[in-house]
Amino acid sequence: MLSPENLPMTRFSFKVHATDGRARTGAITMKRGTIRTPAFMPVGTAGTVKAIKVEDVAATGADIILGNTYHLMLRPGAERMARLGGLHNFMRWDKPILTDSGGYQVMSLSDLRKITEEGVTFASHIDGSRHNLTPERSMEIQRLLGSDIVMAFDECPKIDQPRDVIARSMEMSMRWAKRSRDGFDAGGQHAEDAALFGIQQGGLDEALRGESAGKLRDIGFDGYAIGGLAVGEGQEAMFATLDFAPGQLPENAPRYLMGVGKPDDLVGAVERGVDMFDCVLPTRSGRNGQGFTWDGPVNLRNARHAEDMGPLDAECTCPTCAKYSRAYLHHLHKAGEMLGAMLLTEHNLAFYQQLMAAMRAAIAEGRFAAFAAGFRARYLAKR
Amino acid sequence: MLSPENLPMTRFSFKVHATDGRARTGAITMKRGTIRTPAFMPVGTAGTVKAIKVEDVAATGADIILGNTYHLMLRPGAERMARLGGLHNFMRWDKPILTDSGGYQVMSLSDLRKITEEGVTFASHIDGSRHNLTPERSMEIQRLLGSDIVMAFDECPKIDQPRDVIARSMEMSMRWAKRSRDGFDAGGQHAEDAALFGIQQGGLDEALRGESAGKLRDIGFDGYAIGGLAVGEGQEAMFATLDFAPGQLPENAPRYLMGVGKPDDLVGAVERGVDMFDCVLPTRSGRNGQGFTWDGPVNLRNARHAEDMGPLDAECTCPTCAKYSRAYLHHLHKAGEMLGAMLLTEHNLAFYQQLMAAMRAAIAEGRFAAFAAGFRARYLAKR
Repeated sequence: MLSPENLPMTRFSFKVHATDGRARTGAITMKRGTIRTPAFMPVGTAGTVKAIKVEDVAATGADIILGNTYHLMLRPGAERMARLGGLHNFMRWDKPILTDSGGYQVMSLSDLRKITEEGVTFASHIDGSRHNLTPERSMEIQRLLGSDIVMAFDECPKIDQPRDVIARSMEMSMRWAKRSRDGFDAGGQHAEDAALFGIQQGGLDEALRGESAGKLRDIGFDGYAIGGLAVGEGQEAMFATLDFAPGQLPENAPRYLMGVGKPDDLVGAVERGVDMFDCVLPTRSGRNGQGFTWDGPVNLRNARHAEDMGPLDAECTCPTCAKYSRAYLHHLHKAGEMLGAMLLTEHNLAFYQQLMAAMRAAIAEGRFAAFAAGFRARYLAKR
Repeated sequence: MLSPENLPMTRFSFKVHATDGRARTGAITMKRGTIRTPAFMPVGTAGTVKAIKVEDVAATGADIILGNTYHLMLRPGAERMARLGGLHNFMRWDKPILTDSGGYQVMSLSDLRKITEEGVTFASHIDGSRHNLTPERSMEIQRLLGSDIVMAFDECPKIDQPRDVIARSMEMSMRWAKRSRDGFDAGGQHAEDAALFGIQQGGLDEALRGESAGKLRDIGFDGYAIGGLAVGEGQEAMFATLDFAPGQLPENAPRYLMGVGKPDDLVGAVERGVDMFDCVLPTRSGRNGQGFTWDGPVNLRNARHAEDMGPLDAECTCPTCAKYSRAYLHHLHKAGEMLGAMLLTEHNLAFYQQLMAAMRAAIAEGRFAAFAAGFRARYLAKR
């Protein structure tokens, strides 16, 4: 079994520095840098975190970003990316990159999907061209991209299906996890440099989640993701699942909740033992005029901001809040100006990083419960 | 008569440091900063230079930007802008701003225009609301915006009309120029801080242009714009007009060619004695995938760039060329990513400023003719 303890420090190590209840703070160390946990990973779908320069992403405090295998395999293409020196060189981000396996986007974005034990065939949403994705090909693509944290290829089933459908899907994903492990390990130098995470499935069912966790432990991964959540089940059901799912996964490896979420989702998930997150919400909201503040989300398009000379969030340390008024952000979003998306994206990503930093500090200082209660009292007050 | 020499240095002064043929280089000094001439002014239509942060505009070397009265009077509105502390405070640009008079955009963008001796009534292209614009109201709006260089309100007639239509339009614009002067001078403190430019009209006709110039001289302005060009007449006709128009305007004041233009337009106009320019071309082209280089414009969407690891322009000193490949810019523009517009806008604005700086240096060193010939041989070679 391959566990983090057996690997050289430089490739991948995870240390928990402090715990507080089930919440924990620590650091992942990799060749390209250190990732402070709990960590939020901005999403760089198609070789760019949308509407922000990569140096400004770094300045928000992000230690790692996420790239999407599905988008990048279609454009510019994995082999082309390898010829161009890999994703880091292409987009000029020199810190770690986690790539997803492509499975989730194949299900949600592509046309004419066909899923078999072998893998998935689908038609590109860009030009209709036919593609295959298998555990082996997903590992190869992520290697060609130059990913630092590779995700196992899995199926993410719709959450509202019968238990036996969820169970059969989970079992296939676990067979795919083993094929992913083997495919990754055959990757030569890349397997020496990068890490591989397995993905727990099993819907909202504790027994299925436990079975999935056991199979992943047997295979052995550097980190473990909780997959199949944030797909419409609602925060209550997600938290109910997170009451048991993280505890089923190895304690000495990072736990990554995929595709989550709203600020109050992050606080509740950290409270339940999650170490890593990714979500398009801060960037997508930034393009749509929604800004996050400690007093909840704010719709900058609302006319009440038209003459508000104050900053979006008086406590925020980001360049947008230091320099611009709500009135200006309102104007830019009403006028459809790109700068509105740019400034609000930068703020939202900075706000998310400030929230993660506040959680890390609260855990380290043993006051996470009070922090979480105070956060919710204020953030959710206007709801 | 109000001439630059009679005014305090701090409000507005123009000094020519060197001439070379009809080309000249110098500087305008105003309270908010110095404008090196020949100058190119990036266009900040609606309170933002599109797709670029204001500090990055400054970093390209721009000494002044342009704001559009028509857009800003409709949104956020002139009185609201005044309550928000003026355009500089709103958009956080502390160097000079030139505002146009609104006349040109009323003609080109609004609906249901009606032009009388009094002024123009029109319907907003945003919401259909009715508005008036007169010389007096244009001066008031530009004062409320906090403009540093105010443009007289004029009519910009279609270039292909009969001579008598062009003549009558020019004569009305000259009466509007006097009303603009009076309106500006009644502006209290703003008239002590800001400058007013008149606008020469008269189409492609030397006699009409001369008549217009004489009327403007009689009124007296801080600077003189050449209006009514770059409206479809073509470069040859424009240059033919510029062979006489700048010489009809006062030598001791800056000459501003409105809405121009392509890099080769700028070189030909500087050669003919023009000191200032504005144009949306570098920013609009940046959003559309066209990048300017010393070897001519490049369409980054073209497939030939897909694996080109070289910079857009190897001689360019901008952050985009220092950091990114043509392959990456190609990918971003093909994928419709905002970062593509952002990086190419920054490059194009930097390229324009590098071109202006090269022209200023060539004039100062008495080698402008050689510079212009060398520029054209290379820039136009692929045409």
